[in-house]
Amino acid sequence: MEAPPTPSGFQTDKPILSLLNIDLLVQVASNTFLHPLGAWMLPLSLRSLTFQYHHPPLWGSILYAALVTLYWLSQTLNRRLAYGASRPFDKTEEVLVVTGGASGLGLLIAQVYGMRGLSVAILDVNKPEVHVRNVQFYKCDVGNYEEVKTVSRRVIEELGQPTILINNAAVAHGKTILDLNATEIRSTFDSNVLSNFWTIKEFLPGMIEAKKGTIVTISSALSHIGPKQCADYSASKAAVRLLHEALTAEVAQYKDIKTLLVCPGQISTPLFDGVETPSNFFAPILEPVDVAKEIMVAIDSGIAGTLEFPLYARWIVVMQALPVSIQRFLRWISGCDEAMKTFRGRHPTNNVKGKN
Amino acid sequence: MEAPPTPSGFQTDKPILSLLNIDLLVQVASNTFLHPLGAWMLPLSLRSLTFQYHHPPLWGSILYAALVTLYWLSQTLNRRLAYGASRPFDKTEEVLVVTGGASGLGLLIAQVYGMRGLSVAILDVNKPEVHVRNVQFYKCDVGNYEEVKTVSRRVIEELGQPTILINNAAVAHGKTILDLNATEIRSTFDSNVLSNFWTIKEFLPGMIEAKKGTIVTISSALSHIGPKQCADYSASKAAVRLLHEALTAEVAQYKDIKTLLVCPGQISTPLFDGVETPSNFFAPILEPVDVAKEIMVAIDSGIAGTLEFPLYARWIVVMQALPVSIQRFLRWISGCDEAMKTFRGRHPTNNVKGKN
Repeated sequence: MEAPPTPSGFQTDKPILSLLNIDLLVQVASNTFLHPLGAWMLPLSLRSLTFQYHHPPLWGSILYAALVTLYWLSQTLNRRLAYGASRPFDKTEEVLVVTGGASGLGLLIAQVYGMRGLSVAILDVNKPEVHVRNVQFYKCDVGNYEEVKTVSRRVIEELGQPTILINNAAVAHGKTILDLNATEIRSTFDSNVLSNFWTIKEFLPGMIEAKKGTIVTISSALSHIGPKQCADYSASKAAVRLLHEALTAEVAQYKDIKTLLVCPGQISTPLFDGVETPSNFFAPILEPVDVAKEIMVAIDSGIAGTLEFPLYARWIVVMQALPVSIQRFLRWISGCDEAMKTFRGRHPTNNVKGKN
Repeated sequence: MEAPPTPSGFQTDKPILSLLNIDLLVQVASNTFLHPLGAWMLPLSLRSLTFQYHHPPLWGSILYAALVTLYWLSQTLNRRLAYGASRPFDKTEEVLVVTGGASGLGLLIAQVYGMRGLSVAILDVNKPEVHVRNVQFYKCDVGNYEEVKTVSRRVIEELGQPTILINNAAVAHGKTILDLNATEIRSTFDSNVLSNFWTIKEFLPGMIEAKKGTIVTISSALSHIGPKQCADYSASKAAVRLLHEALTAEVAQYKDIKTLLVCPGQISTPLFDGVETPSNFFAPILEPVDVAKEIMVAIDSGIAGTLEFPLYARWIVVMQALPVSIQRFLRWISGCDEAMKTFRGRHPTNNVKGKN
């Protein structure tokens, strides 16, 4: 018998240690003793205890705090050099379009921005499960260019020129190449890839004219690694990751048009229902609300860049620079090729366009 | 006025130094003083000059030769651990299918294997420029599943079960996302990505039954990096790279079915006609015959794995593990975002299906 979820969404019968994972540890560390403010606490306390500057504990802790601060500054500089200044974000002037926003991550983002007063358009084949203030639903198969063209004109007429575009629509089938039928393969590329081209073609020119915009591409950690039963999904997510890269280069000349790439690991939405993570500690399953929050913080701050979480998603690129035999070994211990065996996906039909 | 090419294909009026590039230097080094045979020459010569073992030049050179040998062995071990033993290759029993084989790289490979006595099928919308012994042309738009299904049955009936499949068909348009029209975007994904799914679905089951096969995926160095005017092309090549990865995992249970991924840099075929390399030394343009040779050597030896050339293609994954600001800088000095400005592609129409 399942215990009722607590208000925070956690199951009360879960052992507390199951909530502990490497991401949480790193998050705590980087907000305490790996954060400049935290790191400088130690020398300050030691000094107030009348330690002298030549005492090893004092100068040692000063050195430590200085290194932490230097690392922190270099990270900021790194982002600034790579992505330039952020664009101004005034919520009263922003219009948001999210594809596949009828449920899951897309709906969450639409809801929050709607409550905050932005005009929001959801483009999806399915009607959203709930009605939300300021959120307008547009029935649209985003894999179909003609439909996107028609609907985008209506959005621009009714809500104004969108300034934030979140390409979130995706389907997953969880089958091997030989088990996938042609319709499923086509639907993966239509919904997950071509939809991005269509919405960019329709909404980017208006952003260029309005001299501001943020285009968010929802890719996946699976864009870096292709496990069994994920050929079409991984291929489609790699495709949009590269689309994001080329788009970033093409809009670099427009100072206030920003591009964001999101490569999350597994999120607990119906899209990958049934899939178990091989390790709750190293590869925790993400809550959609956490992913949504990170994306919204980035949009609000007007930055460009890449969001990768949980932690392991950031290490995949490093893994790919290792010798192939070690990669093979790491892949084996990650268990990624076994993970899809229990895949159920969205039921009753798992190939509807929608949530990510 | 252009001088006539010499029999080797080199232009006689080119300064000899323009043929020098980093790949050539590394190739020479790895076949001489970085090769175990070459490295052991030095201690042997010194010994024959009556050097004693305690003389630094002798034990120093022995140490050097031992290190080179160790590195060489570790590379062999690395490949073996990652990809397993090679499959036997008997040219009298192999049947080859190459998509987009009417010209360029595909035609070259088809020609050579035809001359060597294999049965070869070319699947292309265009008829090959030349007629070659043992090479059968099948008119087929490989982006269309129905056509692939019909043609693949004919191939199996007429030539026997294919044991080598080279997914080489590709188109490139060289336009920005906003300049690409919907037909062009769709054609990129149909020809470069979906075609791979269709041919694998049709030819892999027979390979599994025959208990042998090699599936070659022609991706690109651009699958790792998405420059301006390459959004669709880079996205499509990243997609097939990940398809290869998942395919490799899915066929891992069949010992003698091998998968090969090819990620070449720019090849001097009409597909990317007009594009200049920013550096002949660091990023030399590949000759199709060199690429074909590397692919055929790998197929003949029955190995699985990844072929990346020229040298810089192997270093892109390392680059991607660096801080984003450094990546941005390297990208800028690489000039990749400017390279497509002079793109002409295949003319008169650059969107026909065919050579790579």
